[in-house]
Amino acid sequence: MSRSNDTWILAAQCPSRLGTVDVVTRFLKERGCYITEQQSFDDRLGERFFIRTEFRPLASDFDAEAFQADFATRAFEFEMDFELTPPERRTPVVIMVSKADHCLHDLLYRHRTGQLPLDIRAVISNHPDLESLVTGHGLPYHHFPVTPETKAAQEARVLEVIEATGAELVILARYMQVLSSEMCTRLSGRAINIHHSLLPGFKGAKPYHQAYEKGVKLVGATAHYINDDLDEGPIITQGVEPVSHADYPEDLVAKGRDIECLTLAKAVSLHLERRVFLHSKRTVVFKR
Amino acid sequence: MSRSNDTWILAAQCPSRLGTVDVVTRFLKERGCYITEQQSFDDRLGERFFIRTEFRPLASDFDAEAFQADFATRAFEFEMDFELTPPERRTPVVIMVSKADHCLHDLLYRHRTGQLPLDIRAVISNHPDLESLVTGHGLPYHHFPVTPETKAAQEARVLEVIEATGAELVILARYMQVLSSEMCTRLSGRAINIHHSLLPGFKGAKPYHQAYEKGVKLVGATAHYINDDLDEGPIITQGVEPVSHADYPEDLVAKGRDIECLTLAKAVSLHLERRVFLHSKRTVVFKR
Amino acid sequence: MSRSNDTWILAAQCPSRLGTVDVVTRFLKERGCYITEQQSFDDRLGERFFIRTEFRPLASDFDAEAFQADFATRAFEFEMDFELTPPERRTPVVIMVSKADHCLHDLLYRHRTGQLPLDIRAVISNHPDLESLVTGHGLPYHHFPVTPETKAAQEARVLEVIEATGAELVILARYMQVLSSEMCTRLSGRAINIHHSLLPGFKGAKPYHQAYEKGVKLVGATAHYINDDLDEGPIITQGVEPVSHADYPEDLVAKGRDIECLTLAKAVSLHLERRVFLHSKRTVVFKR
Amino acid sequence: MSRSNDTWILAAQCPSRLGTVDVVTRFLKERGCYITEQQSFDDRLGERFFIRTEFRPLASDFDAEAFQADFATRAFEFEMDFELTPPERRTPVVIMVSKADHCLHDLLYRHRTGQLPLDIRAVISNHPDLESLVTGHGLPYHHFPVTPETKAAQEARVLEVIEATGAELVILARYMQVLSSEMCTRLSGRAINIHHSLLPGFKGAKPYHQAYEKGVKLVGATAHYINDDLDEGPIITQGVEPVSHADYPEDLVAKGRDIECLTLAKAVSLHLERRVFLHSKRTVVFKR
Repeated sequence: MSRSNDTWILAAQCPSRLGTVDVVTRFLKERGCYITEQQSFDDRLGERFFIRTEFRPLASDFDAEAFQADFATRAFEFEMDFELTPPERRTPVVIMVSKADHCLHDLLYRHRTGQLPLDIRAVISNHPDLESLVTGHGLPYHHFPVTPETKAAQEARVLEVIEATGAELVILARYMQVLSSEMCTRLSGRAINIHHSLLPGFKGAKPYHQAYEKGVKLVGATAHYINDDLDEGPIITQGVEPVSHADYPEDLVAKGRDIECLTLAKAVSLHLERRVFLHSKRTVVFKR
Repeated sequence: MSRSNDTWILAAQCPSRLGTVDVVTRFLKERGCYITEQQSFDDRLGERFFIRTEFRPLASDFDAEAFQADFATRAFEFEMDFELTPPERRTPVVIMVSKADHCLHDLLYRHRTGQLPLDIRAVISNHPDLESLVTGHGLPYHHFPVTPETKAAQEARVLEVIEATGAELVILARYMQVLSSEMCTRLSGRAINIHHSLLPGFKGAKPYHQAYEKGVKLVGATAHYINDDLDEGPIITQGVEPVSHADYPEDLVAKGRDIECLTLAKAVSLHLERRVFLHSKRTVVFKR
Repeated sequence: MSRSNDTWILAAQCPSRLGTVDVVTRFLKERGCYITEQQSFDDRLGERFFIRTEFRPLASDFDAEAFQADFATRAFEFEMDFELTPPERRTPVVIMVSKADHCLHDLLYRHRTGQLPLDIRAVISNHPDLESLVTGHGLPYHHFPVTPETKAAQEARVLEVIEATGAELVILARYMQVLSSEMCTRLSGRAINIHHSLLPGFKGAKPYHQAYEKGVKLVGATAHYINDDLDEGPIITQGVEPVSHADYPEDLVAKGRDIECLTLAKAVSLHLERRVFLHSKRTVVFKR
Repeated sequence: MSRSNDTWILAAQCPSRLGTVDVVTRFLKERGCYITEQQSFDDRLGERFFIRTEFRPLASDFDAEAFQADFATRAFEFEMDFELTPPERRTPVVIMVSKADHCLHDLLYRHRTGQLPLDIRAVISNHPDLESLVTGHGLPYHHFPVTPETKAAQEARVLEVIEATGAELVILARYMQVLSSEMCTRLSGRAINIHHSLLPGFKGAKPYHQAYEKGVKLVGATAHYINDDLDEGPIITQGVEPVSHADYPEDLVAKGRDIECLTLAKAVSLHLERRVFLHSKRTVVFKR
């Protein structure tokens, strides 16, 4: 949020090696780019380097394409993956929901007020319930009902929408269908899911009922990337709320809603600001 | 803590039934007992009633024994279990430790300053390391080393100490031996353990290393009563701490220490103030 | 929330005196009312007693009027103020806003989903901006612009709406006008305000800018009743969020929005569940 | 903590200007220094740049003096203040206390276990109470009683101890004397104080009693550097704890102890790891 309107982001990762920071900062210096915020981390167990830089080009005729092409040459030498994000870019997304509307409602609000720089291309649901909420925001709503027989076909339609709309990110805002492992693989690293428990605490269905049975004194939510093993994808952020003996399962569900909204919104915000780096089964998250 | 020096506690539980609150409050009224704080809860799923009352006898010649005997008669009718705790009573305890001293150190400090009304009768360890810390506080230290061969014999010695000292509560302050199921059954509901994870998240050994592998963004600790299934005993309280990608397993261990100390101390405090009620696999905790 | 659909609430306060709990619980017992949850507190400094009881009448022909009349007789003897709240009652409210919509948006969502048992009779604003949001929910919107000259007249119109609609509670959901002291007195104890700081930390205007100047590492919000001294009314609940040097004033404003929404919603929920007792300059809040 | 044993820290600040990051990272690259973690921030309102770099010299014969001298030349051009901290350095400190021992006890424990890399040169108190605790740890204890008449003389003796011991940091661990403004100026930026409130909420004496009067629902503690205006020095970190109506002033004092210990320890840790940068009335804190 604090990014001013002329600030670019360069996010990169590569194998650990001497000179990884220098290759980025020297390039920016040479191009007259003013660094306003920078974080880097070298993971000594994973032997991998991560860096995120916010900068402001001082020249009025900053040529992003030339920047990208020239930096690619240097990055190549370090086997560095990088992404350059312009100021005020809105990331194209598709949101998937079922019947519960709290996370969707929250995302739509943050979208509308500009808190989250989203370009929502479509909302997909396996139920018709939330159509008017979505179309009321002037957004397309796709209702793809799922039965055991139609599941594969419907996932294909979901992928079509994602492709056709050019969505770079899929947000599973309480989509209650288990995705096939093919689908998970296809969306790996490009889809954020909100799971209503402190993973790996209560995997699978009805986590609040599981939590009640165990008599836990804290409930929480986990926002994570999808990978091939559902409920085991790399965690982006987690939120937590105290509960008591007087909270019945339906109370835990209700109490959980706020923390689900906040945790998902935070994860999406971190992702959109290119603060999250995915590597193997873990994430590096450069918070402010 | 806010209890003034003349305040008694009556804690009780019984099957759900009309008149459960009245049987307590009417009795106190009749005896001229002034109620300063009261909480009750009727668990509609468990069909069980819990009540905790702090009161001050107005008469200077309050006869606790008569109170106890007379109330027992009424309680009997409701199948009510109750406990009457006098002002400023210190609960006799035995503490068990291994090598890590942070929880013990914290408990000894709170004991010495009167924050926790403990009467520490003995400290038992399977290692010699913490002897001078304990004896320096003028407390007896028992070193009972454990090997697979001696385990049963050593557990018998532990039970002997507990019995001989009249300890009503056993505090497992990072005791790193798995207790036998006989031992667990013997101590069921009378022993509080601190587990260094957000149970049921990471059971068993090295939970912080498990947490690192999963890349969680929160670590925590769970204080629970021992029952026959280790790591599954009824939870009293849980604490949590944010962590990041930059925390290696040894950092998680270090960060976890503070939250372990605080969570254990809080659970012990709640127990000593008779705020925790154990029923089946869950607890009712009346916080202030 | 956990209240089942047949649960009544009896909330009462009176001067400290022997038998205050008994007068409530005995009455309920006599009437065949089953107590599901009860909390009482006797404030030894303020010498005042507070009690909140949830109960379920066992008889199918529960006569609330008779209950009320008969209990009034007993309460009179103890100078006890009490309120009886039926199951599923929706409290009539008027909401006041200015231009910022986040708290209003949040309240409307919780209203629509039934999380908050509100009966919103009107929304009043000194600006026209939020009209379509409100009328889109089928609720009346009153735009009463305020200038130094019209202030008194406009406050009179606000009071008219409150009276005409029978609102029992006024929610100031980021209403940015300073109320006159007459208005404050009129609404004393019947209006909840959200102040965007950890009162008494940063009173007055632009608290987030004040917080930035001081370089605080936590920002927060305070929900409180209005009384004659604005920003000094009795506090109901407070929320807090960590911030850093990288948060400029506009970031603090943005970060504060979520905590303002949550803190106000929590305070309103506590109020509606009759968990908040107002006495002098402080509140007693019986949380679950 | 995660710093491995061969990691140096370079911390620097200077006026905002193009090339500030590059001047650091290029130098490190040229010297064969491997950067493991780096954070920088350019404050656009304060127009000041801050950077903290952890690095590991790859050469076995790293010459710190040459590094320091050579870097000074480059830093000079940028008006850059910098500090180079070797691995495993223990910062020499003097701790000041009065009668309350909780913060001191906590610091001594973290000192003894190596959690805080402190070299405690002396403990100074205006009371004799904590002498045995300190000398029991083999540390010198200076008892300098303070009366209005002797205040100036005693402050002079304190400064003598600080100078004679070579202490670089003074930790005011609940030292209950108001320092003279000369003393504050002398210690400006070199002394960390723990104030038992969420500054600027309750300045001055008895903050918990002030908090009780106001009926706040959160209490907290603030660790800050001393400057010439006591209770207004730049804030390093703040902690917070929920409280209720049932907490009398003495309960708030008791509840506050844990948060005071944790907040002070955290601030000291951040300072020792060179994560805190002081500029004007605010701090920049690079957390992990």
